[in-house]
Amino acid sequence: MENPSIPKGTRDFSSIEMNRRNYLIQIIRNKFELFGFYPIETPSFENISTLIGKYGQEGDTLMFRLLHSGNFLKKGISDFLMKKKETKVDIFKKLLTEYISNKALRYDLTVPFVRYVVMHRNEIFFPFKRYQIQPVWRADKPQRGRFREFYQCDADFIGIESLSLWSEIELIKLCDEIFTKLNFPIIIHINHRDILGGLVEISGIKNNLWKDFTISLDKWNKMGKNIVKKEMLRKGISSESFEKIAFFFDMKENFYKKIESLTFALKNSKKGKKGIKDLSFIFRKIKNISLKNTKLEWNISLARGMNYYTGTIFEIFPKYNKESSHLNSIGGGGRYDQLSSFFGMKNFSGVGVSLGLDRIYLSMIKENLFHNISSAPSKILFINFGDEEVLYAYNMINFLRKKGISTQLYPNAVKINKQFRYANDNNIPFTISIGKNEIEKNKIRVKNIKKRVEIEYDNINDFFHQLSKDSF
Amino acid sequence: MENPSIPKGTRDFSSIEMNRRNYLIQIIRNKFELFGFYPIETPSFENISTLIGKYGQEGDTLMFRLLHSGNFLKKGISDFLMKKKETKVDIFKKLLTEYISNKALRYDLTVPFVRYVVMHRNEIFFPFKRYQIQPVWRADKPQRGRFREFYQCDADFIGIESLSLWSEIELIKLCDEIFTKLNFPIIIHINHRDILGGLVEISGIKNNLWKDFTISLDKWNKMGKNIVKKEMLRKGISSESFEKIAFFFDMKENFYKKIESLTFALKNSKKGKKGIKDLSFIFRKIKNISLKNTKLEWNISLARGMNYYTGTIFEIFPKYNKESSHLNSIGGGGRYDQLSSFFGMKNFSGVGVSLGLDRIYLSMIKENLFHNISSAPSKILFINFGDEEVLYAYNMINFLRKKGISTQLYPNAVKINKQFRYANDNNIPFTISIGKNEIEKNKIRVKNIKKRVEIEYDNINDFFHQLSKDSF
Repeated sequence: MENPSIPKGTRDFSSIEMNRRNYLIQIIRNKFELFGFYPIETPSFENISTLIGKYGQEGDTLMFRLLHSGNFLKKGISDFLMKKKETKVDIFKKLLTEYISNKALRYDLTVPFVRYVVMHRNEIFFPFKRYQIQPVWRADKPQRGRFREFYQCDADFIGIESLSLWSEIELIKLCDEIFTKLNFPIIIHINHRDILGGLVEISGIKNNLWKDFTISLDKWNKMGKNIVKKEMLRKGISSESFEKIAFFFDMKENFYKKIESLTFALKNSKKGKKGIKDLSFIFRKIKNISLKNTKLEWNISLARGMNYYTGTIFEIFPKYNKESSHLNSIGGGGRYDQLSSFFGMKNFSGVGVSLGLDRIYLSMIKENLFHNISSAPSKILFINFGDEEVLYAYNMINFLRKKGISTQLYPNAVKINKQFRYANDNNIPFTISIGKNEIEKNKIRVKNIKKRVEIEYDNINDFFHQLSKDSF
Repeated sequence: MENPSIPKGTRDFSSIEMNRRNYLIQIIRNKFELFGFYPIETPSFENISTLIGKYGQEGDTLMFRLLHSGNFLKKGISDFLMKKKETKVDIFKKLLTEYISNKALRYDLTVPFVRYVVMHRNEIFFPFKRYQIQPVWRADKPQRGRFREFYQCDADFIGIESLSLWSEIELIKLCDEIFTKLNFPIIIHINHRDILGGLVEISGIKNNLWKDFTISLDKWNKMGKNIVKKEMLRKGISSESFEKIAFFFDMKENFYKKIESLTFALKNSKKGKKGIKDLSFIFRKIKNISLKNTKLEWNISLARGMNYYTGTIFEIFPKYNKESSHLNSIGGGGRYDQLSSFFGMKNFSGVGVSLGLDRIYLSMIKENLFHNISSAPSKILFINFGDEEVLYAYNMINFLRKKGISTQLYPNAVKINKQFRYANDNNIPFTISIGKNEIEKNKIRVKNIKKRVEIEYDNINDFFHQLSKDSF
């Protein structure tokens, strides 16, 4: 029989990894709550109609779809074979759309959240601030740092009236708090969809190429100007249009110089001016509030992949190792003021951030930022000398657990050395031995595994007090 | 456009529900760690070959299968249509087995755990004690208390050599600790597969009817003797065989009477005697250790649904409302000493317990056991008077958050009453108002929302100290 395996792009997590992941989640959750976001959860799979068309064409093909449950296919076969008139291709298409699948795994947390808000709008008090920490699934080609199952940690505002830009400011501050706590400096790249809209206006690029334009532009940082240009030309954007605005995407000047250039260039674009006004507001306020560990940077080539963004957009990168860091964003977000209209509700205003737990994890491993996370919950192992001895010792096990000290009993009465080795392998700092001798003498024998010393105590209480004194 | 919905059998969780669920998970996790179990996680979906055939026929049909990702069907169609010789039925079958799906969502946590152990056996120190708290999916018909997505909380021992019965005793004690902490008394029904095996031997039921026998017997508690008998006869068990052993499943006597009867009845069954010896050991030790909030009861008709159990089996019920409680087990477990052989490894010994988070949650709601769980993380709302005022107040927001107090800013400068109503609706106990007046006078105005009183403070520090004094 061959060795078992797991699907590609998925992972098992050992207890060492779990302790680190739980540590990250705990900090993110605490900060989300500190900023007044409330937790919700949504199902792992949604109706296809909820998800389809929200993420662009790529998203639709990368969704993991669920088969109808039960014995659907048997039924499907006979149903279809009854309808002899149809061609084979029709059969397959129908099989696909009606019989095979009407559900898919969550692709991100934003669309299910907006679906949640529309569905529960009568129970929700707006503006609604929610956070959500759950896995999402994408059938992307697996590669370094890209998995088919990964965790997102999202915090979002949803308002009935348009949310002020303080939402963006609070989210930036929130990220600053989280990554400061993690001892992990970040750069937040920010941009505004309306500035891109304004640039498209003045460039002469046609409206129907807007989506193609943003998808290609988003590759600027990674791929550089030439590749983006080639892709844009292939999609039907003229070289003249491209060159009219390409200059801005490479601007290395500081914020105020950029504002100056763009204010001039977009002076006749209503859209463009709105974008500039918004970004200026955010930068001025952030300057006054002061971030601890975060650099805010205006990146005019930032476009973001998701279809649904309508205003500010931002992406988060590790600050260390600046050259390679652009390859790996560890989070992102923005404003999506029209997403609810997909679900038949107008005028819901949304702003949110999404942190990629797995990307953060990998970056922190690389920078050795987990070095002080303890990985062993267990403190004490009781050596198993046989049923009578265990029964005698069990009161002490109870006593220690009552004191909140993680205590194990070795399940079998095997050779003592094997049991000591188990404590050592599992980083359990103390063993307690209670054999026939100890029962007779009414003592307990404690071994400090690392220091390799044994001490006899009169009773478990004495040992416990010694432990507490050693700030154990 | 129609209202959005979620797939049947799935649920959204509001923040009130999430706080309660997280409270439950936190307690279960703490107790698991107190007993020395270490956390792991496995992917949400597994290869079909890992899952199929482990849960019995019902399990195979109730699995949620994933479609191959990407544009597989298009390819599938053209591939198949090339092969003109095949009949339509062949096409469909092949589509099913090769092209449609080779993955399925996790059905329980035990089989993926055993897969994990076999796969990572060279990195694991045995005996391995792991816990795992993750959702599982079953395409069961949704009904009260039965969902298609639900959380299991599992703690298991896996040993290379056969684990002693102290594993079972530790698991029973662990459940006692968890439910005592939850203030939720339980009854644990326990039985032994070998006792059932012994009874089958003396009844004359044929070996090939063993699975059918256990599946039917497991309904005894809910359905009663007559229905079980009817089902067994239909499956080919003779009325004589049934009546030979039916008496035992209805025994109301205490443990020692049951032991006496069964010891006599099974005196020639090696299997049966092993089962009796194991259960006696567990009962005697548990009596000495003493449980706080748990009754251990021998239920000879308990058989458990899963194929993989080989020794002790148990199921957990709420103690209140004894009549209806038998309908709703809130957890279960047992010994599965041969499960690893499915993955080509002999001699791994496993014992585990699985708690159903959603069942526990519903039972606790019914008994009003969540009444003292606070549902609002947020303590303070800053009223938004406009950009200048917010900027002025932002230092105080920072200050309070630094002190660990969950603090919100209302995102828009709307009418004050609307903002106060938001605080009230969200159970936020205090609002802080800093308008032009307060800035001029250098004061802050705090409103206690419930008591409807306002107090002026000289600065945020004074307010914070008052808060701390009130053991806020």
